[in-house]
Amino acid sequence: MGPHPAVAAIRLAVRRVLTDILDDHGRTPGHPAHEPPSSPLVLVACSGGADSMALASALAFEAPRLGLRAGGVTVDHGLQAGSDLRAADVVVRLRELGLHPAESVRVTVGRGGGPEAAARDARYAALDAAAERHGAAAVLLGHTRDDQAETVLLGLARGSGTRSLSGMAAVSGAAGRYRRPFLQLDRQTARKACMVQSLPVWDDPHNADPAYTRSRLRNEGLPALEKALGKGVVEALARTAQLSRDDADALDAWAGRAEAGVRDDDGRLECAALHALPPAVRRRVLRRAAIDAGAPAGSLFARHIEEVDRLITGWRGQGAINLPGRVVARRQGGRLVIRQG
Amino acid sequence: MGPHPAVAAIRLAVRRVLTDILDDHGRTPGHPAHEPPSSPLVLVACSGGADSMALASALAFEAPRLGLRAGGVTVDHGLQAGSDLRAADVVVRLRELGLHPAESVRVTVGRGGGPEAAARDARYAALDAAAERHGAAAVLLGHTRDDQAETVLLGLARGSGTRSLSGMAAVSGAAGRYRRPFLQLDRQTARKACMVQSLPVWDDPHNADPAYTRSRLRNEGLPALEKALGKGVVEALARTAQLSRDDADALDAWAGRAEAGVRDDDGRLECAALHALPPAVRRRVLRRAAIDAGAPAGSLFARHIEEVDRLITGWRGQGAINLPGRVVARRQGGRLVIRQG
Repeated sequence: MGPHPAVAAIRLAVRRVLTDILDDHGRTPGHPAHEPPSSPLVLVACSGGADSMALASALAFEAPRLGLRAGGVTVDHGLQAGSDLRAADVVVRLRELGLHPAESVRVTVGRGGGPEAAARDARYAALDAAAERHGAAAVLLGHTRDDQAETVLLGLARGSGTRSLSGMAAVSGAAGRYRRPFLQLDRQTARKACMVQSLPVWDDPHNADPAYTRSRLRNEGLPALEKALGKGVVEALARTAQLSRDDADALDAWAGRAEAGVRDDDGRLECAALHALPPAVRRRVLRRAAIDAGAPAGSLFARHIEEVDRLITGWRGQGAINLPGRVVARRQGGRLVIRQG
Repeated sequence: MGPHPAVAAIRLAVRRVLTDILDDHGRTPGHPAHEPPSSPLVLVACSGGADSMALASALAFEAPRLGLRAGGVTVDHGLQAGSDLRAADVVVRLRELGLHPAESVRVTVGRGGGPEAAARDARYAALDAAAERHGAAAVLLGHTRDDQAETVLLGLARGSGTRSLSGMAAVSGAAGRYRRPFLQLDRQTARKACMVQSLPVWDDPHNADPAYTRSRLRNEGLPALEKALGKGVVEALARTAQLSRDDADALDAWAGRAEAGVRDDDGRLECAALHALPPAVRRRVLRRAAIDAGAPAGSLFARHIEEVDRLITGWRGQGAINLPGRVVARRQGGRLVIRQG
């Protein structure tokens, strides 16, 4: 008798990603009996919650069968009383699964960009450092299809278009360090896999705290949307992420190629040439030019670019447009000048 | 003292669109005193609800000032007892606003594609016929920014990518017949404009009927999403529509150009050439090819195209892929063959 379907599903998802990692390292799978010390190490980032505990269990099962070493890291954000004890408890569970190394890393969460962003920045910095320290080939993250759906809705709320709808990538970070094996798997399957394997899981009270946008979305927004639109919403949002990512990549590539053709011999942007581009491509060229001039990408919104675009498409002698980062865009003699100061 | 801000807002929105219509007809505005019988006629489609009553009032005010004739049509769907009386009542109100012609058209709603789609099909057929009968230059529709937000969410639920997120166009139909002046205006402003002008409005009970997806979205889904994500959601969704439309247009144009380059001398699709295209462009070429072969666009989902795409990107000797409309896609000797039968 094979494993429970939920366990089979999490293992298959992890096996696929591990095979990709081996391919990327130019290795073929199948040295199960005795791994040389040089076999690549894959870490799992584990909060102790159901998603990442399921991921840790599947990694522990699959890695040795593919000749890989498996370890785990839990990040202690130090934001709640007793978080150090909980982190120590997660380390014990990771060891019990057979992961080595299994360690806890304490971080100090700053204040930049709101509490969720600050915690995320601190967490990834710690995971990067752990990966470097252990020479890990990859770090697995437990984000599920439900997390992806939430991320798409958060991007939708920004109203910044296709790129902001593209959610989380299956592969991200420097040299593709971060992998998300569960991005097509629903949260329910991860929970079920923990249950049938008798893995104790920890429910982060933040996940139910309505002070956090994501938890409001998870507990109220998305269920209401499912009630209105049907149960397929989460899957539709996850598919939207993938399609949007591909569309945004293609259009960014087009904008990159188009840019050379709209600059004069002195490298200045020609308004007539910009005008001839499709709006979607022109706006991307303008956005890149603003960022190149020093505007911070995170502060540059669609409405800024629309205003600059009107210097091209709705020219009525407007004055200079102020952009974030003290960048100024103005039209001068048929040229668009975007620079700081 | 000028008009109430809400009235000023609806009039400005209509004035902009009427000016565009005059431009398209090669006329300049400003023959207010005595319009020749040849002055273009603009119709408003009016349900008697707040949005389209506000639109009718603004059209009645602005059209004569720009040398245009203004008329109105209300569609009696015959779906509720007394709908004929209500339609007659709307006609009286349109006449009171000074619209001429002002008429009611009775339609028979079929059953194709669900009740909402069937009613919409019947309505547009009747509006097309009315526009032809009166030689109207345009038909104005009262869709607001809130309707646009709902349409984007409905598209999101399909999970078919950027095109399905592009909502309703400001200009649509044959020769740009349909115009939506209120697409950037919120519903609240339209209601307010009716109130301060003492225009009686009719609340369609369908709008509150949870049997309809759109009314569930309006009354439950969207409010819950606003509660989770903040009040800017409607505006963000409307901006997403515009950005998605431009992105989808640019990518469709790219796919159109790319198609010639991926066909061999006999017009067959070459797998190697398809493989070299960005995924977003390749999938659009495949979709067009399937539609050209007879697959109905409305039944062709993202998952169908993904499966055909795997004949290119994940070739392992798969068999033929069945698509809607008895269209079959298969790979034969480095060529992709998509045809009916």
